[in-house]
Amino acid sequence: MKKNLLIMSEMPEFLVSLFDQSYNTFKVWEQRGSALNKDKEEYISKISQDIDAIAVMGGTKISAELMKRMPNLKVIGCYGVGYDAIDVKFAHTAGIKVTNTPEVLNDEVADTAIALMLNVYKKIIDAEKFARDNLWVNGEFPLSRKFTGTKLGIVGMGRIGKAIAKRAEAFDCIISYHSRNKTDVKYQYYKNINDLAKEVDTLCIITPGGKETEKLINRTVLNNLGKNGVIINVARGSVIDQDELINCLKTNVIAGAGLDVYANEPNIPEELINLKNTVLLPHIASATVETRNAMGQLVFDNIKAYFENKPLISPVV
Amino acid sequence: MKKNLLIMSEMPEFLVSLFDQSYNTFKVWEQRGSALNKDKEEYISKISQDIDAIAVMGGTKISAELMKRMPNLKVIGCYGVGYDAIDVKFAHTAGIKVTNTPEVLNDEVADTAIALMLNVYKKIIDAEKFARDNLWVNGEFPLSRKFTGTKLGIVGMGRIGKAIAKRAEAFDCIISYHSRNKTDVKYQYYKNINDLAKEVDTLCIITPGGKETEKLINRTVLNNLGKNGVIINVARGSVIDQDELINCLKTNVIAGAGLDVYANEPNIPEELINLKNTVLLPHIASATVETRNAMGQLVFDNIKAYFENKPLISPVV
Repeated sequence: MKKNLLIMSEMPEFLVSLFDQSYNTFKVWEQRGSALNKDKEEYISKISQDIDAIAVMGGTKISAELMKRMPNLKVIGCYGVGYDAIDVKFAHTAGIKVTNTPEVLNDEVADTAIALMLNVYKKIIDAEKFARDNLWVNGEFPLSRKFTGTKLGIVGMGRIGKAIAKRAEAFDCIISYHSRNKTDVKYQYYKNINDLAKEVDTLCIITPGGKETEKLINRTVLNNLGKNGVIINVARGSVIDQDELINCLKTNVIAGAGLDVYANEPNIPEELINLKNTVLLPHIASATVETRNAMGQLVFDNIKAYFENKPLISPVV
Repeated sequence: MKKNLLIMSEMPEFLVSLFDQSYNTFKVWEQRGSALNKDKEEYISKISQDIDAIAVMGGTKISAELMKRMPNLKVIGCYGVGYDAIDVKFAHTAGIKVTNTPEVLNDEVADTAIALMLNVYKKIIDAEKFARDNLWVNGEFPLSRKFTGTKLGIVGMGRIGKAIAKRAEAFDCIISYHSRNKTDVKYQYYKNINDLAKEVDTLCIITPGGKETEKLINRTVLNNLGKNGVIINVARGSVIDQDELINCLKTNVIAGAGLDVYANEPNIPEELINLKNTVLLPHIASATVETRNAMGQLVFDNIKAYFENKPLISPVV
């Protein structure tokens, strides 16, 4: 008998199609009416007793309360490397397995981080608009700032942090990092994030989200980063105190920011949108066809492995 | 007695200020009236007999005719690495030295090339507008294309070509190149540019301009690059047949283009501006404060060296 799979958030067509072939699928995101959350809630209530597995985009909340309503739930496949929106602690006590999609997106997120750095330093977005608006005929675009050779501080030296560092080395960046523990890399380690912020030109955030890192980048860190400093965030919006970031960008406490993630996605505060010293992306760090296909396949393969009693490929432990 | 220096095109203030301290300066670009070219022409005619040196932005034409009108002209300092707008052959027969600014801009141009590649592949410009227009609340930005691991063909393996290759290696690009002669690099060499175009995903142009490379990238090369192919140009607009490029972009003969240079700068054809598969920059490859300062200093130091009878630092030979 086919297992019942609840797909919490919209997923790529090829993956939904794969799921449709192997499971009875229940698509929460299709339950969109005039009362969005109410419709979804009623839908989940009707089927929750029968659900065996959940597939979910990273960032969509899976609370203990939700899991408690699903007595047959065995496995949650998270599409993304960050699983901070899932109550993993509760899942584990309830014997529910959680999987995520590490490794396959390392390169892509690192590419996005470097793209943000180059765009902030070299004002590519503004220059492109200047060219396209045909303003060049009236004079040159203002000079920007050199990226090669700058000091880059990476907050979080995991797999993606290392991929960012590898690329930044080719730009002759002087690399240092902060993480909870010193790791097996050649770069200078800073136990104290404020010491790192004082030292570098760019602070690139690629640490897991969740309670432990909430507002790790606070006003003090931003003050220490200083007026020539640039913030890049390809981690989670929660890691930065977004209100303080906006204040610092407004008053030139720091020079600029390149952001892929925000406190309350998909909402980007109007204050941030109005700031000229920002490059703002809609959480596309891993959003290429190639990488999303690899992530989707990994979500599918993990859930499949569970129901075939095989070892999970990438369990969250 | 101070020498007479003709400054042909607008230059950074710090450099003009340096020149003002050491020379009698004549500033052509300040002669802007309702009849721009006529005013400039009259201005030059009045002073041409007395000019000892010229400082000029790369890309501004210095013809044999102009040099013939300056019997005292001894040295031309070109601000930029490309000196294709200067009739160097005539200059050399007339005993006029020409200098340019190589090396100091290698990293900057390479940074711009990589920025263009990442922006084209990952559709950063469109994604940024999507975020800033607050469209994210209605749904996700479409998936783009992975850059890491793609095949990069570099046309011109000089100093900047090598700097581009160094960066692209960190993105695991498979690198090959075309130039007139095989050079001392480990990358695969293609004598025939069409063979290279067939092989790669991206063709990045960083070969000198001028007659020898005029329209090197023609319709045949674009056909061979093919429908998934991307053109990046940080060299000179003259190297590409711009009309054919526009045709190919319009009809999806190739996938996209990231351009910093054009056939008739500062004019960008409206057809190019209207194309969505382009990233267009206003010739900013070297346009950061740090790099332009280094370039300006080198222009100054070359002209100074000449009049102090010292060896030129970076003569065009």
